[in-house]
Order: sequence, then structure tokens, then C-alpha cells
Amino acid sequence: MAEPPGLTSVEEHRRRILDRVRPLPALRQPLMDALGLAIAEDVDAPISLPPFDNSAMDGYAVRAEDLAGAAAGTPVELPVVGDIGAGQSRIRAISPGTAAKIMTGAPVPAGADSVVPYEHTDRGVARVRVSTAPALAANIRRSGEDVRAGDRVLSQGAFLGARQLGLLANLGFDTVLARPRPRVVVMATGSELRDVGSRLSHDAIYDGNSWLMAAAVREAGAIAYRVGIVPDDPRRFADTLSDQLVRADLIVTTGGVSQGDYDVVKEALAPIGTVWFGGVAMQPGKPQGFGVVGEDEVPICALPGNPVSAYVSFQAFVLPALRRMMGITPAVPPTVRATCTAPLSSPPGKRQFARGVYDGDTVTPIPRRGSHLVADLAEANALIVTAEDVTHVEPGTAVDVLPLDQCGH
Amino acid sequence: MAEPPGLTSVEEHRRRILDRVRPLPALRQPLMDALGLAIAEDVDAPISLPPFDNSAMDGYAVRAEDLAGAAAGTPVELPVVGDIGAGQSRIRAISPGTAAKIMTGAPVPAGADSVVPYEHTDRGVARVRVSTAPALAANIRRSGEDVRAGDRVLSQGAFLGARQLGLLANLGFDTVLARPRPRVVVMATGSELRDVGSRLSHDAIYDGNSWLMAAAVREAGAIAYRVGIVPDDPRRFADTLSDQLVRADLIVTTGGVSQGDYDVVKEALAPIGTVWFGGVAMQPGKPQGFGVVGEDEVPICALPGNPVSAYVSFQAFVLPALRRMMGITPAVPPTVRATCTAPLSSPPGKRQFARGVYDGDTVTPIPRRGSHLVADLAEANALIVTAEDVTHVEPGTAVDVLPLDQCGH
Repeated sequence: MAEPPGLTSVEEHRRRILDRVRPLPALRQPLMDALGLAIAEDVDAPISLPPFDNSAMDGYAVRAEDLAGAAAGTPVELPVVGDIGAGQSRIRAISPGTAAKIMTGAPVPAGADSVVPYEHTDRGVARVRVSTAPALAANIRRSGEDVRAGDRVLSQGAFLGARQLGLLANLGFDTVLARPRPRVVVMATGSELRDVGSRLSHDAIYDGNSWLMAAAVREAGAIAYRVGIVPDDPRRFADTLSDQLVRADLIVTTGGVSQGDYDVVKEALAPIGTVWFGGVAMQPGKPQGFGVVGEDEVPICALPGNPVSAYVSFQAFVLPALRRMMGITPAVPPTVRATCTAPLSSPPGKRQFARGVYDGDTVTPIPRRGSHLVADLAEANALIVTAEDVTHVEPGTAVDVLPLDQCGH
Repeated sequence: MAEPPGLTSVEEHRRRILDRVRPLPALRQPLMDALGLAIAEDVDAPISLPPFDNSAMDGYAVRAEDLAGAAAGTPVELPVVGDIGAGQSRIRAISPGTAAKIMTGAPVPAGADSVVPYEHTDRGVARVRVSTAPALAANIRRSGEDVRAGDRVLSQGAFLGARQLGLLANLGFDTVLARPRPRVVVMATGSELRDVGSRLSHDAIYDGNSWLMAAAVREAGAIAYRVGIVPDDPRRFADTLSDQLVRADLIVTTGGVSQGDYDVVKEALAPIGTVWFGGVAMQPGKPQGFGVVGEDEVPICALPGNPVSAYVSFQAFVLPALRRMMGITPAVPPTVRATCTAPLSSPPGKRQFARGVYDGDTVTPIPRRGSHLVADLAEANALIVTAEDVTHVEPGTAVDVLPLDQCGH
């Protein structure tokens, strides 16, 4: 079913945004600073892992053929030429007919082709008595067994979590090329808004959106500057925005975009930006704005003011923009399929984002009581995404689910 | 199948740790500081949301019965007594037979029981002509529709993500009671270890573990102090440890716990701590230590030095300890069930943690090449957990999967 006349599709609006937003220039960063970012280079191993053949046990490095006849009743004795400690090995080679004491992780000396563990020996110091014939190559970890020098170990766009940073460190890297965290300025508009912690008048509500958006920005791995409530006056809004532009890679506003609203965002942006405003065929989240402002053409996402609409818009549009800026692929977070446990209705011609509880297999819609409701949003851990041509979902049907709180993957 | 003699079970070792580790004392924190933490109080809504009946549309607040006969051909005209803006409403009530212009979100005045949207009117200023009879209560969002004052909105232990912080902000809270982020000191031991960015000698390897552990600690929502490589000398190890105790809620060491290792960790801890060392019936990760050190009895997890063993031990033991300290329930991260796509073998009597790629439905084991291998760890996004009595998993069988990188849930 086509979207209602005059409405832009979710895909079209998202394309508008992703066509405009560019990955931030990458820079070389200390490993820990890059945690949660995407790598902006291909990495080939500069060394092998392990870098050298090393012992997997504490024991004695030997030549297997010297011990061919060793058994419980007929031990073989070898002279011990010294100790090879991990990271402190002065013995680089042994002669036939000798052994060297060796610690786990220490380099196997040239001339040795097997390691006999302590328990098969008398743990001798000057001479060692071995009671089992070792297999060739026993208890030796070969250089390159894990990673061979030159192997591609990480490809551009890969997520840098603990395990990936650990791998880079094992290969000796102290820095990694990654895009910086986007700096996102978050502003809430609405004359009815009051700061948390203050007293409410009879006609006012608390600003939850600037917190919701700033926290969502941080969860996405970006940096949030929560400017908070901006007065519903186009001139003051424009002044605040201009002040913030210098530190913004992206601006996110909430409120002031509905038809008939005081239109502060629209009015303020007309002289300083090129911003599209209109309706998107989605539920919730219909009124949307996107464009660029200022000389540097900083992108701005103007989201609706109702908290659930703002959050769904964040997931649908802001998060893909941030991922594009951060070089995370794909930019649009992938959905998964899950079985819907209850019936769900959806408005014709609109893509619906319903709150749900996803358990890995099934998703249960949270009874919908209105699009301005934040309590069910806090209960949800996923959005159930129903296509524009779907008006009803039967229980037991597979649906698309967007899991929330996914650590930037 | 019982575990091999002399080995402690994973459950037993985990119980040893969780019995000793306590939730950190909670403190009231600014909202944004608590992002990713667990709430340490039950929260009941101090106000209703919305706090007052308000208009869902821009239009006119009216008494429905005054417009009972209105239709396209027979409009009804009412005098307009003024404008009610959002957050700036001086008109608190209207008389029968009158209307007040009202903006979305503005409080519905006493005496009005319906809102007529602009499009059903001539948008008059002094008088308005209405061409449709409104339903009673049309376009009014009732106070308490989302949250009723007194409702339990968050329960102790709930994860504080963006949506939960948004809910708290909507209710006017500027702080929340949450436990602080545990401060975790991370130390790596091993004479063969060298710092990343330095040159390797023929017998040395890079310290990846202190980075792996510190990054994993940060991913868990805690604070990591990466002390880095500590020399393999019991006295210097003990000195470094003593220096660090003052800022540590938990110590994590890697290396020096295998039987026959230079035993720096064991030797250093003997005089200053009460630490158990022994084998745990798991693969990888057998050698483990846990106890307390110093006057303040700071808990210490002594993990094996091989990177995969260290990471699996982190997931099995350190993460539950951190979650307990942070008040996240359950302390042990829950596993999910998934269909294993390939055969998997597991040693008898040991719990195996195999690296796998989990896609929501299935999990594919990464071909196992050894327990010291970090490249496959970086490829994995889950651990496949097989019970002590399982030695073989057939393809198509359901297995327990521990998804990694779960944002502290």
C-alpha cells in the first residue's frame, strides 16, 4: 500500500539523511580510546602469534629420538644444560643427547623437537630421568599457530570491542586508526518544558527528551552535549544553535516540528539552514525535519517532541546517521526475525515501530496506550517494525524486530 | 559425569566468589552518571504523566454539547475567549457556549470536554466557526494516561539505559540512587611480557591481557585501572599490589597461577592475602585463584595467563563479580538457547566454553585450534557453553550460548 499522499517514506527520509552525512575523518587513537568504535583500516598481522615455537608445559626440551626407548621400567637419563625461562632464555640451542629445563611460554631451543612435562620425569637439575617416550612435537606450540605474520586480522569497519583490542595488543599495536566519536548537541524546545529538579506550574511538564536523546547518543558511542531546554523563541533558538555549531558534528532537536506548533525550529532555521520539514509515513514519529545549518553545513535532525516519537525517530534516523559518521557498517542497524506472541494492528500506509519485549525467540508487544507514553518505552527492549502494507499481525507470525541497546554493533 | 578428582566445579568456584563479593554502597548520582548502571531503589511516580489533561491537537477547547448540531452545511459559531499556549496558559476555565484556542500539550481548561482540531474550523480569532460535531473527550490526553502518580515505574536492580533515564527525567528526577562503578585494577604478570609499541626480543611476547581485561571491565560498565605488566618478582608484585589496593574494589591479575609457573602471584599473595588457588573443571581456564588481600579484604581474581583462558575466566567469574558489585541481577549473565550448526566435542567432566558466532537463532562454533588463540576470539560474538557431562554435540542440537558484548544487561 502506498503511503498517504504528502508523506515521505521512512526509506526515503533515511536516504536523505545518509546521503548527506559523511564518515568523520579517521585518526590514530590509543587503543583504549577506540573501545566501542569501528576500525578505519585493514590490519595485517606484523608478527606471528605465537612469535616463536614455545613450550606448552613446564618440563624439559629434548630431542624425541634420544628418548625413544624410555618407559616406566626403563627410564632414560639426559644431562640438563640449563634452564629456559619465559622471557629470559639465554639457551638458544641444545646438542643431541641433552635436555634443557623449560617453562611454559619459553622458546623451544634449536635442536629440541619435543617437550617432556615434569610429571614424566624425576624433575632432575643436573641430569633428568625420563620415564615416557615423548611424541615428536609434543607440547610445543608452533609459531604462527594462532596468527601468521601477514594474515588479515581485522577489516575496515569491524567493531572494536575488548576482544579485538586484545588481539591488536597481542600483535604489539598501541594505537589504531578509528573515526572520532561524533559530538552531538542535543536541544529540546517547548514552552511547556521545565528542568528536572525544578517545580512544575499547572501547565508545564518536565523535559525528559534532552536526557533521553543525550543518553541514547552516549549509548551509541558518541559524545552528547545536552544543551537542555531552548526557549520557544526563534531568535533565541537561533542564537543558541549558532553558539553550539562550533562543537557539533550533528544537532538533534526535539519539538517544534508539528504542523501548527509555534514552529520555533522551522522559523529559526529558515535564515540559517537548508532544512526539509514534512511528514514521514511512520507511526509514531510522523513530523520530521532534516537538513544542514551554518557555514560548515552541520547536519541537524529535528525530531518530534513527544518522547516515544522522539526515541523511535532516534532509532530510525539519528542512529543510522551516527553509525555512518562512525564508519559502522551497516549504517542502519539490522533487524532480526522473531515470532510475535500477540496480535498487533498497524495503520495502513505507515511503517509502525511498536514497543516490545524480545527474548531471543519471541517478541511480545507491550499493550499500546498512545504514542506519547514513556512508561512502556522503558519496559521495552525492542521495537517491532511492521511494513507499510501490513495492517494486522496474527499471533505466531514472524515479524521484524529491532533490538535496542546493542552496544554499537 | 563428575569432574576429574581435585578439580572444583565452575559453579562452586563462582559461588566462592559471589559469596565474598558485596554490592557497593549506593549513592545518589546525577542522571547521566548512572547511564548503564542498575538502579538501587524502587521508584514510584511522584506525579502523573501527563500531569494534567492536555490537548492532543492544535485547535479549540470546547464543550461538546454546544456543538451537537454542527455539520458541513450547518456550522456552529462560538466566541473565542483567548489562546491557551503550551506552558503559558492564563485561561484556566471557559464558560458554556464559548471556545478557547488551544495548542498541542496545553492544559484543557475547566468547562471544556473536547478539542476541535483546526481543520474542522475556520481558524477564527474572535469567533470560530466549527463544521463538525466533536465527540466527547475527543483529542484530549488525560492526566495519568501514561503513568499515574504512585505507580511503581522502576524496581530495584533495573538497568538504567536511555529509556529508563528518560522516564526518570519525565517524572522530574535529576538524580537516581545507583551503586558506583567498581574500580578494577588490572595487572598482567609474566617475564615474557613486553609493552605494546615496544620491540620484542626473541623470547618475548606482547602483553595483550591487560588491554583485554581493562577493555572488558569497561564494557561491563566498571572503571579499569590498567597497571599493565608487573614484574615476575614476588616482592615487586606485592609492592605494586599494595600501592594499588587503595583505589581498588577488585583486583584482576593474569598469569602466574599455573602449576609450575614461577608462581609469582601465589608467592606474593601468601603473606598479604587469603587466596585459594587450584584447578576448576573448565576448558579453557583450568588454573584459577580467588581470595581477598590487604586490610580491607579487597577481592582478587587471579586468572590464567593465556588470553583465551583469561577472557573466558573473565566471563565466567569476573563479570558475575562485577554485576554483583553493581547490583545487576542476575549476577551471572543469562545464557540463551541456540541451534548448533556444526559438531562440537567437549572434554569429559569439564564445562567447555567454545567460541562461536551467534546470529539470534543458530550458533556456529569457530574451528578450534587451541586454547591460546586470540584471533578466533576476536571473530567470536558468543561462547557456547557445554555442560560437564557432555562430550559431543551433534549439529542441529540446541546448546547454551552466552552472547558477548551485552551492554551490562
